[in-house]
Amino acid sequence: MDITVAVDAMGGDHGAHVTVPAALEFLKTHNEVNIVLVGLRDVIEAELRQHRAEPGTRLRIHHASEVVTMDEPVQSALRNKKDSSMRVAINLVKTGEAHACVSAGNTGALMATARFVLKTLPGIERPAIAKMLPTSKGATCMLDLGANVDCSAEQLYQFGVMGAMLYSALGHREHPSVGLLNIGSEDIKGNEVVKRAGELLKASQLNFYGNVEGNDIYKGTVDVVVCDGFIGNVALKASEGLARMMGDFLRQEFSGSWSRPTTWWRPLIGLLSLPVLSSFKHRVDTRRYNGASLLGLRGIVVKSHGGADRFGFECALEQALEEARSGVLHKISDMLAGHSANTTDPLDA
Amino acid sequence: MDITVAVDAMGGDHGAHVTVPAALEFLKTHNEVNIVLVGLRDVIEAELRQHRAEPGTRLRIHHASEVVTMDEPVQSALRNKKDSSMRVAINLVKTGEAHACVSAGNTGALMATARFVLKTLPGIERPAIAKMLPTSKGATCMLDLGANVDCSAEQLYQFGVMGAMLYSALGHREHPSVGLLNIGSEDIKGNEVVKRAGELLKASQLNFYGNVEGNDIYKGTVDVVVCDGFIGNVALKASEGLARMMGDFLRQEFSGSWSRPTTWWRPLIGLLSLPVLSSFKHRVDTRRYNGASLLGLRGIVVKSHGGADRFGFECALEQALEEARSGVLHKISDMLAGHSANTTDPLDA
Repeated sequence: MDITVAVDAMGGDHGAHVTVPAALEFLKTHNEVNIVLVGLRDVIEAELRQHRAEPGTRLRIHHASEVVTMDEPVQSALRNKKDSSMRVAINLVKTGEAHACVSAGNTGALMATARFVLKTLPGIERPAIAKMLPTSKGATCMLDLGANVDCSAEQLYQFGVMGAMLYSALGHREHPSVGLLNIGSEDIKGNEVVKRAGELLKASQLNFYGNVEGNDIYKGTVDVVVCDGFIGNVALKASEGLARMMGDFLRQEFSGSWSRPTTWWRPLIGLLSLPVLSSFKHRVDTRRYNGASLLGLRGIVVKSHGGADRFGFECALEQALEEARSGVLHKISDMLAGHSANTTDPLDA
Repeated sequence: MDITVAVDAMGGDHGAHVTVPAALEFLKTHNEVNIVLVGLRDVIEAELRQHRAEPGTRLRIHHASEVVTMDEPVQSALRNKKDSSMRVAINLVKTGEAHACVSAGNTGALMATARFVLKTLPGIERPAIAKMLPTSKGATCMLDLGANVDCSAEQLYQFGVMGAMLYSALGHREHPSVGLLNIGSEDIKGNEVVKRAGELLKASQLNFYGNVEGNDIYKGTVDVVVCDGFIGNVALKASEGLARMMGDFLRQEFSGSWSRPTTWWRPLIGLLSLPVLSSFKHRVDTRRYNGASLLGLRGIVVKSHGGADRFGFECALEQALEEARSGVLHKISDMLAGHSANTTDPLDA
């Protein structure tokens, strides 16, 4: 089946300069994909010309007259920009013209607009932001990463279901293990909400591992890590900051710009080590993990990092494609409905 | 002035095998320090003999007949082990026989025992765990790292005061900047507790920067990062996990154990890069930052990582020494008393 992805071409720090070439590159390597570029027609056409490309059967332009800025308040985006590239791209998912949409725009506005336009799946109180993170063993899905600052135990349980279904849908494992992020492995640890969430997860059909701690995320102790959005957001951003600092330190050491007095042999060793260092860099390249899923909606929406470059945005497109192919939405709603005999499609409800 | 440090010689994963040689090494390099090794006399004496050392004027043994195990429940440690090495070491601080104590024991038991024996400073509801973390610019003090899972706005404000006084007392800066860990830089972000804490910090005499995000921790955006213990604990452990993973990846790349097929030149480049890599390793060596402060008590208690080796434990001793020298306790209580004309020493109250 061909998959159509709607791209908010204006979103992100670089807008069409990144989204358009990423879309062109993605089409080259994925024959079964069509892309709809949503945004200011003039801007998109100019960018396409830059790349000696033009619209065709696999690449359409869908004009949208407004743009949600990166620092625009959520309410302003929702109320005043009904023809924004972000909203129109999401609308294409609602009407069925696209199987998924990708935006690098303002997270708050994207989440609110997606929720307003698409609505949540039955049984889901609030959507969550989920992301695959690299671990020593492979990858772990972590959620929520910032959509919900105060979560109930029931929401944390729902995050567990959504994360597990995403993980299994993406082909990683049939019954993924789910861990609850806490400050100790014992059941008695943590606050009341977390303790109650642990009970709900334990009683569920999920493959619940129990509590995990911060260091378990990158160890890959479990396939899915569940936490509230405040904690997930802080942990993710602290990790990004630490990875950047370690990268900077490593660069300084090899270039010799850190050591005093400067030693002539450091840059030489740096040069010799280039293939090794670039292989290391590839393994910890956060761009490869770009593309967070807005889970729990009646449609697939993927959020790219606002500052993503072309390669990073392509990875977000890949994430959207994999979700669309795998039928993750149906799996989530089936699981939440407790595998009942209900045959109505929640997506058509 | 000579400083006496009481050492819980039995604490940690390795007990006297680490604490005793660390104490001996520390005494060699610090002429103004005396150490009291607290614990089972036989075990300590045997360990001293291993290192051809014996007690003297600067190194005393104080017998304590019990040991708190690493997984012992807090209540059991408090009620049943009144002659534990941990408790007796803290008692030496209370009676004034030691200026500070260091333990690598069970965090929960240490915090509860220290709070029970020493009591909190006036104006402090609950103590916090604080730690210096490396940043791109130097070091940042972060608290709370796990003592309090649900904090009120007032507690977060008190953490700000304690962290700022610790940072300034250790000689890093006169008016350290304080940031409140949040999921966005705007005042409207976060939950109600965090918003209210922001107002309290803004109205205080502290040099309040405003909200900071997870990536600001390692950027060194502020000198002191305030957060509740659940978030701080997760962020710290996630960082430790990520640093370990990146270190493993780097080792694998240089040893060639990751790449398939194995390339003969990788181990060679690894060998050539050894001085550079070891300099990098030194900069990100978490052992150098070992030693978390239990702040807000009427006495100085430093918690070493349970798995610390000799060098790591020495760093925790250094942390205790610096705190004792700098009069951090007086600074905290002065600040909390609002620099009033109150001249009674809170430590003698």
